[in-house]
Amino acid sequence: MELLNTIDSPADLRKLTRAQLRPLADELREFVIESVAQTGGHLSSNLGTVELTIALHYVFNTPEDRVVWDVGHQTYPHKILTGRRDRMHTLRQLDGISGFPRRAESEYDTFGTAHSSTSISAVLGMALAAKTKGETDRHAIAVIGDGAMTAGMVFEAMNNAGVYDDINMLVILNDNDMSISPPVGALNRYLARLMSGQFYAQAKNVGKSILPGPMRQLAKRFEEHAKGMVVPATMFEEFGFNYIGPIDGHDLESLIPTLQNLKNLKGPQFLHVVTKKGQGYKLAEADPVLYHGPGKFNPAEGIKPATVSKMTYTQVFGDWLCDMAAQDDKLIGITPAMSGGSGLDTFAQRFPQRFYDVGIAEQHAVTFAAGLACEGLKPVVAIYSTFLQRAYDQLIHDVALQNLDVTFALDRSGLVGADGATHAGNYDMAYLRCIPNMVVMAASDENECRQMLSTAYHYNGPAAVRYPRGAGIGAAIVPELTTLPLGKGEIRRQGQSVAILAFGSMLAPSMAAGELLDATVVNMRFIKPLDVDLVLELAQNHDALVTVEEGSIMGGAGSAVAEALAAAGCVKPLLNLGLPDRFIDHGDVGQLLAQCGLNAEGIAASIRQRFGKDQPRLVVNQN
Amino acid sequence: MELLNTIDSPADLRKLTRAQLRPLADELREFVIESVAQTGGHLSSNLGTVELTIALHYVFNTPEDRVVWDVGHQTYPHKILTGRRDRMHTLRQLDGISGFPRRAESEYDTFGTAHSSTSISAVLGMALAAKTKGETDRHAIAVIGDGAMTAGMVFEAMNNAGVYDDINMLVILNDNDMSISPPVGALNRYLARLMSGQFYAQAKNVGKSILPGPMRQLAKRFEEHAKGMVVPATMFEEFGFNYIGPIDGHDLESLIPTLQNLKNLKGPQFLHVVTKKGQGYKLAEADPVLYHGPGKFNPAEGIKPATVSKMTYTQVFGDWLCDMAAQDDKLIGITPAMSGGSGLDTFAQRFPQRFYDVGIAEQHAVTFAAGLACEGLKPVVAIYSTFLQRAYDQLIHDVALQNLDVTFALDRSGLVGADGATHAGNYDMAYLRCIPNMVVMAASDENECRQMLSTAYHYNGPAAVRYPRGAGIGAAIVPELTTLPLGKGEIRRQGQSVAILAFGSMLAPSMAAGELLDATVVNMRFIKPLDVDLVLELAQNHDALVTVEEGSIMGGAGSAVAEALAAAGCVKPLLNLGLPDRFIDHGDVGQLLAQCGLNAEGIAASIRQRFGKDQPRLVVNQN
Repeated sequence: MELLNTIDSPADLRKLTRAQLRPLADELREFVIESVAQTGGHLSSNLGTVELTIALHYVFNTPEDRVVWDVGHQTYPHKILTGRRDRMHTLRQLDGISGFPRRAESEYDTFGTAHSSTSISAVLGMALAAKTKGETDRHAIAVIGDGAMTAGMVFEAMNNAGVYDDINMLVILNDNDMSISPPVGALNRYLARLMSGQFYAQAKNVGKSILPGPMRQLAKRFEEHAKGMVVPATMFEEFGFNYIGPIDGHDLESLIPTLQNLKNLKGPQFLHVVTKKGQGYKLAEADPVLYHGPGKFNPAEGIKPATVSKMTYTQVFGDWLCDMAAQDDKLIGITPAMSGGSGLDTFAQRFPQRFYDVGIAEQHAVTFAAGLACEGLKPVVAIYSTFLQRAYDQLIHDVALQNLDVTFALDRSGLVGADGATHAGNYDMAYLRCIPNMVVMAASDENECRQMLSTAYHYNGPAAVRYPRGAGIGAAIVPELTTLPLGKGEIRRQGQSVAILAFGSMLAPSMAAGELLDATVVNMRFIKPLDVDLVLELAQNHDALVTVEEGSIMGGAGSAVAEALAAAGCVKPLLNLGLPDRFIDHGDVGQLLAQCGLNAEGIAASIRQRFGKDQPRLVVNQN
Repeated sequence: MELLNTIDSPADLRKLTRAQLRPLADELREFVIESVAQTGGHLSSNLGTVELTIALHYVFNTPEDRVVWDVGHQTYPHKILTGRRDRMHTLRQLDGISGFPRRAESEYDTFGTAHSSTSISAVLGMALAAKTKGETDRHAIAVIGDGAMTAGMVFEAMNNAGVYDDINMLVILNDNDMSISPPVGALNRYLARLMSGQFYAQAKNVGKSILPGPMRQLAKRFEEHAKGMVVPATMFEEFGFNYIGPIDGHDLESLIPTLQNLKNLKGPQFLHVVTKKGQGYKLAEADPVLYHGPGKFNPAEGIKPATVSKMTYTQVFGDWLCDMAAQDDKLIGITPAMSGGSGLDTFAQRFPQRFYDVGIAEQHAVTFAAGLACEGLKPVVAIYSTFLQRAYDQLIHDVALQNLDVTFALDRSGLVGADGATHAGNYDMAYLRCIPNMVVMAASDENECRQMLSTAYHYNGPAAVRYPRGAGIGAAIVPELTTLPLGKGEIRRQGQSVAILAFGSMLAPSMAAGELLDATVVNMRFIKPLDVDLVLELAQNHDALVTVEEGSIMGGAGSAVAEALAAAGCVKPLLNLGLPDRFIDHGDVGQLLAQCGLNAEGIAASIRQRFGKDQPRLVVNQN
């Protein structure tokens, strides 16, 4: 790491000669592989951006020039070159650096990203701010993958940007022909056509099959643009961008002069770069999906098949989906580009005619489901809790308002661990339960998750099942597709004085806390409709109620219990436990939950603190 | 209305000869003008769709074929032709028919719309459902305006649709060059170029300036497509659609044969139709914005300037924006295509360099604001409460998580009246207060709205001010730009026994209820941070607390009070008043609020019912 060790900031990088950049890239790539092998994290995407990262920091005056990395999981080379090389071993760990760009972490991280397709909007804001403030030398650059291009907000941003011909704005399409799942849709076909060069050849009657080398082409097109000779040829030009490309994103001798030329052009620029995920690491090149986000591994040996451990909730969902689809040919499975992550791969193989990967397009996914439901089909939308935030209006306006029969399988509800605050599924209970017609459930174990999915599926209206990331408690799965009574909880432990009302994943620690305190413990199951009868019965028979949920206390399930008590005119000491009103960083979920007081000891301690040390006792504000 | 009176369903329409359709269109147009003049409602857009509506129902076998009208406010001709002619006088009134398509209202309303840009997603769902179910003759048709084309979900849907070459799906772009505000952005320029015909001429080397008549062109293009001769020429073709157009959307002799031809083609079809808003009514043609959504008027005289009445909250916001912009040149005003509706027109004239209409693009609007805020500018996003639902993830992930200094001005919070459930701003308190870093305020009068906007603006982080549609109580505006203490409410009336905690618009009826009951009344001002000290002080000094809000009780401000009491270990009788857990139809806001018990009498009655008839008394569930 002879060269890399000298780079503590992009200023150091810019002191290198052009000839030193290729060896630097090799060192950087090696460092990325070693680093990710040690910590786990994203690999394939970072191997794909090594040269682009070097070229950007070499050509542009970062951090004065703003680079925004869409999705942001491809920023390890960027982090390494911007002063965080020696912290890469802490990546995605508690108190370590984030796996995504974070404004709080570095001045080079100009915009926090993680959810996809935000970069062009942010960069347009930055570019217009520079213009407004008279900072005419400042550039704003978005780097966005082809997968992220399918999300609608990209087009909203391009539509807006395309009319400003006096801004310093560059969009770099990092086209690697793979988001997390293989890409889908018409746009991908289009990009493939652009890459093959056929589009150019046909539309412009150039008569040549591919670009003759980036420099010559670039010069030619600059000239043509200047003369107004070029008619809109690519979709990006139709949106008002000056389109250049495609060029080889691993060839520094193409990248650097192209970027230098683009730096001198005003108005929205669009550079189409072709890279390869996993580039330079044979194992990752051969299977970029496997190496998308590995755990720790030995770089020489590669990733070994994991020994079979407990089943994840994702697998529980995937199995349920196949079983229900086998039983009911009206079932349709929908994923917004998360087929693997959401557990739909087997379903996709077995029922290809009923599987729809709509691309990174959460809004469309939900309204598309609404359209299917109008015709009597039964769509199941598999989506992470955090990504359903993208389709909130569609859920309200297109599904719930029309009371359409759509099932939402909300994976990764609650804390998500290494991905951190951007991916947290902490708000779904609050943002779903305020919507009329919704049914909202939280699964406390694997088998209940399966039952809840069946319950949601057979409920004739919109229903959501939330379940956590990762493995459950190891509950045995009953193969039959049984349902649960709607809006009913179950008493799991009969105790004294205090009743703990547990929602979803918090049942297990609540049971343990119940043992410690000899408290009653209830598996509430439904956030909506809440089992109000049970809540009132518990209030009758206990001195105090405690709610526990892996979600924001504000507006969450405990808040629903408080409302139910108030609505019934029942006055009863109540303690709401759940996630606090702050964004929670990345780290081990168990550790994070413990920090929030959401393990057995924490729950028991909170109850003791409120209601008395040894024996739960009422401490009431007496007026 | 000789012909129109014979049409009680599209089946009747299809019995007419082609020659009868033109006179029918004239009658239908006249009926629309008379009807809207009588009830108020949308006019310009409906005059623009008269011929298209006739042609669609004439050519397609509705309701077996599905027509989805994007936005849906242009469906009066559709309603008139589908059996609702005699109910048009009840339009948008309590218990009358809706101003938008509603599945519950008619089998011809195949998909409820109102928020824009949902139609292509829904229609793709319907088309793929037809394929799945083997209903090979069924067509699914979306009619979408050019304004709605700027929203991202349209591109998400087109990207998804473009790969299915065996579906019966037609998208009709109703290009009238005007959404509610004049259209903006690159796409609009592009459509203008398509309309001018230059694009065709250049890109295809046709050498003719415009299409030579739809039939000949259509035949030619069908042939070219069949031979694979046509290269992608329009953006829509790049998305995998077969593009036809533009054709004159008021010419039945173009529309009908074109639709008949398209009906026989498989795969996603795209028909570009050019219409004129206000067509056939000179006054509306001359000023389609004025006639976009008029109140009642005399068709012969047209709309008369309204006599100056009380100031609306929208005007309060518009004035504040100008005043603050004059004081601080960092202020940037952003609207997603609602410049007039949100009160930004004067600002746009006075500060054009700091005004951004980003198109119907709520997601982009919010992340664009985040980008501006990163650079130290101070964006104000003016958006209806209901439309912020479209940018929920962007608010969480791009603004709140980074604690960026963005002000959200939430117009039309609470019930909206004639627009009904689709536009209801009932959920913002619930969906905003669960998000860390957010400040959320509700204005109880015009001057407080102004103060809250200043407070939000000067707060260094994300802050939202919600205010209702229409006029306030007539409070005098203090010209100075003063702020309110953060997170502090104020006691407005000192009373006995019961304390009414009023949020925003509910202060006025709560004050009146307080007089009736001699209750304490508090203007809470902040939903977040809640004035917990004040809540606890009120709990100390009163027998019971009552919260009142114009928003969903579930997860709303009253729920925040319940949480605060629980968090403090304060046990106190509590009554939460607000909007019930159901979608509330269109109608007069005052009537609707009264139905929900949210007028003075209703609030007093609810308090009496809970706490005793004459004197508030505690009725507590005693255990």
